[in-house]
Amino acid sequence: MRFLYLAITMLATAPSAFAQGSEAASHIDPVAGVVLSLAIILLGAKLGGHLATRIGQPSVLGELAMGVIIGNLSLFGITALDYLKTDPSIDMLSKLGVILLLFMVGLESTVAQMLQVGWSSFLVGVLGVIGPFVLGWGVGAWLLPEHSVYMHVYLGAALTATSVGITARVLKDLGRSQATESRIILGAAVIDDVLGLLILAVVAGIINAANVGGAMSYGDVAMTLFKATVFLVGSLAIGAKVAPMLFSLASKLQSQSVLLAAGLSFCFLLAWLASTIGLAPIVGAFAAGLILEDVHYREFVERGEHSLEHLVEPIASFLVPIFFVLMGMRTDLRSFADWGVLGLAAALCVAAIVGKQLAMLGVLEKGLDRLSVGLGMIPRGEVGLIFANIGLTLVLGGERIVDQSTFSAVVVMVIVTTVVTPPLLKWSLNRRRPVNIASDSSDR
Amino acid sequence: MRFLYLAITMLATAPSAFAQGSEAASHIDPVAGVVLSLAIILLGAKLGGHLATRIGQPSVLGELAMGVIIGNLSLFGITALDYLKTDPSIDMLSKLGVILLLFMVGLESTVAQMLQVGWSSFLVGVLGVIGPFVLGWGVGAWLLPEHSVYMHVYLGAALTATSVGITARVLKDLGRSQATESRIILGAAVIDDVLGLLILAVVAGIINAANVGGAMSYGDVAMTLFKATVFLVGSLAIGAKVAPMLFSLASKLQSQSVLLAAGLSFCFLLAWLASTIGLAPIVGAFAAGLILEDVHYREFVERGEHSLEHLVEPIASFLVPIFFVLMGMRTDLRSFADWGVLGLAAALCVAAIVGKQLAMLGVLEKGLDRLSVGLGMIPRGEVGLIFANIGLTLVLGGERIVDQSTFSAVVVMVIVTTVVTPPLLKWSLNRRRPVNIASDSSDR
Repeated sequence: MRFLYLAITMLATAPSAFAQGSEAASHIDPVAGVVLSLAIILLGAKLGGHLATRIGQPSVLGELAMGVIIGNLSLFGITALDYLKTDPSIDMLSKLGVILLLFMVGLESTVAQMLQVGWSSFLVGVLGVIGPFVLGWGVGAWLLPEHSVYMHVYLGAALTATSVGITARVLKDLGRSQATESRIILGAAVIDDVLGLLILAVVAGIINAANVGGAMSYGDVAMTLFKATVFLVGSLAIGAKVAPMLFSLASKLQSQSVLLAAGLSFCFLLAWLASTIGLAPIVGAFAAGLILEDVHYREFVERGEHSLEHLVEPIASFLVPIFFVLMGMRTDLRSFADWGVLGLAAALCVAAIVGKQLAMLGVLEKGLDRLSVGLGMIPRGEVGLIFANIGLTLVLGGERIVDQSTFSAVVVMVIVTTVVTPPLLKWSLNRRRPVNIASDSSDR
Repeated sequence: MRFLYLAITMLATAPSAFAQGSEAASHIDPVAGVVLSLAIILLGAKLGGHLATRIGQPSVLGELAMGVIIGNLSLFGITALDYLKTDPSIDMLSKLGVILLLFMVGLESTVAQMLQVGWSSFLVGVLGVIGPFVLGWGVGAWLLPEHSVYMHVYLGAALTATSVGITARVLKDLGRSQATESRIILGAAVIDDVLGLLILAVVAGIINAANVGGAMSYGDVAMTLFKATVFLVGSLAIGAKVAPMLFSLASKLQSQSVLLAAGLSFCFLLAWLASTIGLAPIVGAFAAGLILEDVHYREFVERGEHSLEHLVEPIASFLVPIFFVLMGMRTDLRSFADWGVLGLAAALCVAAIVGKQLAMLGVLEKGLDRLSVGLGMIPRGEVGLIFANIGLTLVLGGERIVDQSTFSAVVVMVIVTTVVTPPLLKWSLNRRRPVNIASDSSDR
């Protein structure tokens, strides 16, 4: 069929195009560029994963590192792959990947198991926001006293986020997704997302009030909290009732791969719902995974189909590495090149890492590995990068609140917290028991 | 992380955005819209597939029909889903879907098996182009004598394409992908794509020559043929040598899902290569599937991994229905509303269907089901729709060669040939043996 794409160009611009022959029309179908990009990313991910595994690290660290290399080839004058960082198709596929990752992680737990650690998750989430916020504000007040208090608040807020993708992936790589500590971390990340919504509503409210001289609207902040709570409680409570009926209905459909289509649709619908109320789509995908349990689709399994985990696994294997390689690619190593930036960056990194360790105090259960919980909350990942970008757009009374070097320091903090987590978490998780997971290739 | 996307809007436009609260920022992350679209399409596909299966038709017909319904809801004033027809993310995913479909179909055959039917495929492809071209030209000369010969040539050329996606899917639905007849059809579709390249090079050359008064360049036509031949022979010959070495190398990588990543990358690279020389990406994907054989990745299977078919299957189950639902959606039923158009359309449909039956004479093997080969070559699918669009852009001496009603007639021909194929092919394939495939839900 490709000849018809070719034809569009050749015939539409017939007088001039023919002279150039088919060369002129090469690669008109955008999917050709997408599949080439996918091949490069997948091969890079596996090579990076292999090298990381060889030195005893989780695969995801190798994928990140390979992304960093590919994304910084421009430092050596190679710019041919720079388009990958901003390609909309690759970006969309990477986001589908992280949605499916959280869906799969959710499938490995049940709502009941999450509620068992509910209070711990809540406290871990809250403390994991308070710690970095206070320390970040403090670093700002200490090192940048000449700047406004708004910038100090921005620095505090920038340190609060948790990017659960990295942690979820490390836990999966090590086969520990179902440990109690893992459930606490994952639950805390959901709480963290809700708190993030609130913090930003407050920050936006303060800046808005300062700009127009008005008062902050507490009603909107309350409404944000209300909607997020309704979504989380509602989806878990109603979903647990409705899902079995939906899947029982779906099992009556005579068509191929109905279980996979129904499971993915359920995940996608909750991801969309979460998004409509301002939460991350991955929060909805995680909730969908929690809600779905084997009993909901036993009609499918009884007639010989594979389980939902088994069916989603290859799709996730295809899409998830795209997310991590892309995250690595968007890491600009030039941020590390400025010594003036590095001082502030180092202080922010310490604040970000130490601050999140306050979270471990939220673990109520006895005998658990509190350090792993604290370490699991460290990565800021793509969340932090987006937050850093926000800084550049903050304006108060016509003046920018965050300058370029502060922005670069936040970026360095994001990179460091993201890259140190996989090895730290692996060390921590294996610390208290015999190292029975030498390489994740044995963990299949 | 969603809160950060929210934050971009809230903070970047702080003075005005806060008054609208988080509502204003809903759905900023484009992936939320994409996952909602995917849920709608997947659920529609399975419902349509179910209904088609219930009346004894292949699932793909139900997916097409459900697409037609969704795509024409605007006739009843519902336009909320019309964006799906042109959404770039959905379009890209659907193209990935058809690439994976042809890859999977290719995996079910080997190069040696294809070469056994090579001459038949070649003759079927050539005759399947000549038949419709002559009849289409004839219909033009007979019904539209007042138009230029260029329009008659356009009508002939518009009937030549074969959209192998539909046929491949029907064969898969019926579990017949590995029949000799299926191999002949799939091989002929590859030949057809090469011939299409040539026809368009010639047509463009003629119009170019007529416009500028120059002569057609036979050199460029020869070059197009040369490159296509080099790709096909080269990829099959070299690929068969290189693939085992590549997969043996890949099997030494210690990382998860290496086989899947290596297989997909191989498929994607060949799809891209095909595209660079002007062939359809699906031709490259099909070639990749042909080249890869179980022995190439026995190292993986020996250590307990699933086969490549098994791993690609869920990914294809996710993406392939998107392609067929989207193809249905892009079918505009208003094309059928003009009686003046329908006369020409009926003649073109007859020319398109009868003309392709010439292809069955190309089957050299004895005792084969020639009618199924002829019927399998009928669908024009999305290829035909693109060709129809080209017609609107053809200009000679400042005048459009193809008018709106002729364009609509070509569109109707494309719709009819696409929709009649699944039931015809199913009937034909089951005609000569006991109907042992009552529904494709038993065919797993």
